[in-house]
Amino acid sequence: MQGDPERRNRLTRALGAAGLDAILCSSASDVLLCTGYWPVMAMSLSIVTSQGEAHVLLPEDEYELAHARTSACIKTYKPNSLDRVTDLMTSISAPFAGVISSLGLARATIGIRTKLSVQPESYVVSTNFHGSVGTLISSSLPKARLVACDNLLDTQKAAKTPAELSHIQSSILAAGQGFGVAASSIRSGLREHHVASKFQSAFDYAGDGADVERSYGSFYCMSGPNSAKAAAAYARTRQRMIEHGDLVMIHANTCADGFWTDITRTYTAGEATARQQAIRVAIDEARAAALSKIKPGVEAKVVDHAARSVMKSHGLGDAFKHATGHGVGYAAANANGIPRIHPCSPDKLEEGMTFNIEPAAYFEGYGGMRHCDVVAVTSNGCKVLTEF
Amino acid sequence: MQGDPERRNRLTRALGAAGLDAILCSSASDVLLCTGYWPVMAMSLSIVTSQGEAHVLLPEDEYELAHARTSACIKTYKPNSLDRVTDLMTSISAPFAGVISSLGLARATIGIRTKLSVQPESYVVSTNFHGSVGTLISSSLPKARLVACDNLLDTQKAAKTPAELSHIQSSILAAGQGFGVAASSIRSGLREHHVASKFQSAFDYAGDGADVERSYGSFYCMSGPNSAKAAAAYARTRQRMIEHGDLVMIHANTCADGFWTDITRTYTAGEATARQQAIRVAIDEARAAALSKIKPGVEAKVVDHAARSVMKSHGLGDAFKHATGHGVGYAAANANGIPRIHPCSPDKLEEGMTFNIEPAAYFEGYGGMRHCDVVAVTSNGCKVLTEF
Repeated sequence: MQGDPERRNRLTRALGAAGLDAILCSSASDVLLCTGYWPVMAMSLSIVTSQGEAHVLLPEDEYELAHARTSACIKTYKPNSLDRVTDLMTSISAPFAGVISSLGLARATIGIRTKLSVQPESYVVSTNFHGSVGTLISSSLPKARLVACDNLLDTQKAAKTPAELSHIQSSILAAGQGFGVAASSIRSGLREHHVASKFQSAFDYAGDGADVERSYGSFYCMSGPNSAKAAAAYARTRQRMIEHGDLVMIHANTCADGFWTDITRTYTAGEATARQQAIRVAIDEARAAALSKIKPGVEAKVVDHAARSVMKSHGLGDAFKHATGHGVGYAAANANGIPRIHPCSPDKLEEGMTFNIEPAAYFEGYGGMRHCDVVAVTSNGCKVLTEF
Repeated sequence: MQGDPERRNRLTRALGAAGLDAILCSSASDVLLCTGYWPVMAMSLSIVTSQGEAHVLLPEDEYELAHARTSACIKTYKPNSLDRVTDLMTSISAPFAGVISSLGLARATIGIRTKLSVQPESYVVSTNFHGSVGTLISSSLPKARLVACDNLLDTQKAAKTPAELSHIQSSILAAGQGFGVAASSIRSGLREHHVASKFQSAFDYAGDGADVERSYGSFYCMSGPNSAKAAAAYARTRQRMIEHGDLVMIHANTCADGFWTDITRTYTAGEATARQQAIRVAIDEARAAALSKIKPGVEAKVVDHAARSVMKSHGLGDAFKHATGHGVGYAAANANGIPRIHPCSPDKLEEGMTFNIEPAAYFEGYGGMRHCDVVAVTSNGCKVLTEF
């Protein structure tokens, strides 16, 4: 199992409660959850049993990185060789059979993912198992019973352990470098991609912190009418030239060793107009209202309601087009991340949950303003992790 | 079907030859191949029939991007709503059933991916269907027969059409900005992540070309002993301070609208030593030997053999630890990309195939040198696309 005993305990308890003998994961963020190791190429498989055993099978050139991070039992395989041409399925089958056959799971109930899920990137390429996880298990353990564990994994990812929280804080620290250095560079006459590259460069130049091995991030700039399009599920920098008085939205997703942030700030190129000032007042109030509600035991929809009521009272209800937030940490942007800070959310807040609070207003053809923070639920309230 | 009639013809012929009535894809690069549209969040499904019909189901906030790129019949769905909390599987099921039930595929043979495959990132998060593609089809078409089409897709990705080649050239042009501007900045006393950020920044600042909507890229710097570790399947920038006389390897993977490059150059911090000069001579000769063999009809292993023989003749056979190349374009780095320029490759070169030629020598504890170009097979030879 991973070096984080608290996560180990939570996983073991969850497996027991779900009546599972083991869970088998292939996606990088799931393997991270289960072992503490964030695979580079996502060609790793992790197995955690209800007895608290954990194993991870990974390509040999990731051994060094994994060894530093996980206390799971590591088994490596060779994806490629100069002696033969093979495919990944063939390379992984025999070593996987070796790992799984030693675990006494012949008639076990084993959880695997069976549904669509949002997964963060881990490298410029990653491996998609396309349903072959089930095939791999069935080949080795024809009598094992495979069941869905999507909910178990998604729920486990919601409340972070103190160790996981500290990774997220490292990631936020790095993101802050981008914002701190580059915000003053925003002005009319620059193109969106020029501004985004200044933020990106400040972030990249700061590099990994002392305790971070792999730090990635993407900064996006959307200006004027393009900032209204940021209500979409994704951000996109274009080549538009920024004009005086434009709203200029900077969105960032940064990552420290697999733990992600989701941060947005909106500036004006020049002096803010009266309209922009009015929107900012509403967003600031909505943010404060949402934050004031957050503590363990509160229904997530109450937090959304607090922010949405303020936006409505300022006449901006229709302009606030998305939920107030969603779980953040094991992925950057996942509208279905638990807890869903959504008008109809069934989720209840727990200590250690991390999510964004992103009140916003979007006006087609004019622009959009969003202020997106990452917050953590504390024992009696919340802490804004993105205080910059 | 997509706007590229040549790809449309090739796909239709391949489906016919494989006895398939349709193929259904979910990974972003597979959807790109089949429709010409590169999904942002990879929560899209494409269906191509042997009659040449093509349909793509995608989230509504990607409509504008898709409409500009594909001539497939587009159907959109709403992944999220303020009126209810749902999951992606629920959001996509009904609209998918609507699309597929109209296609007369009730008893069809439908190809899907069933094995591990390497897929490039499309955004900071992407959707993994985890085997649910089969479930979605079976729910709508319980009598359809699902068969593996992994090989068909991987083979289709090998030889590019002229239109696809032009996208790869756009991506290379952007990468060249990074190398052109930043190579002169390499010197001792800088840290690896500082150097990488200079290349990255030059690339980002150049931005999208006129005909490119989404341009991404990652630049890595590995110096001294760290450059020896670049023999791994992945690159990694660390915080090491570059020393005088170090080999400094810069690796880049850039992307224009879903078409990827794989480029490496190696420099010396200061003057190259006699040892480094000797390695460079060997690598240059190996590259020339490989390039001289490339033309349609040649066995890919002949190209590997040409490069490897030169390295051996210079006493560097053991230091050349990987294959001479692999297919590039629909992914940045995929050792199994067709054609595999590998000692045991079964592949034969065809006009339009694009791959890298990456002769290299790695010495544990000292350093590594690699020169990685992207080349295209022409009607009577090859063209080096990365001439900078």
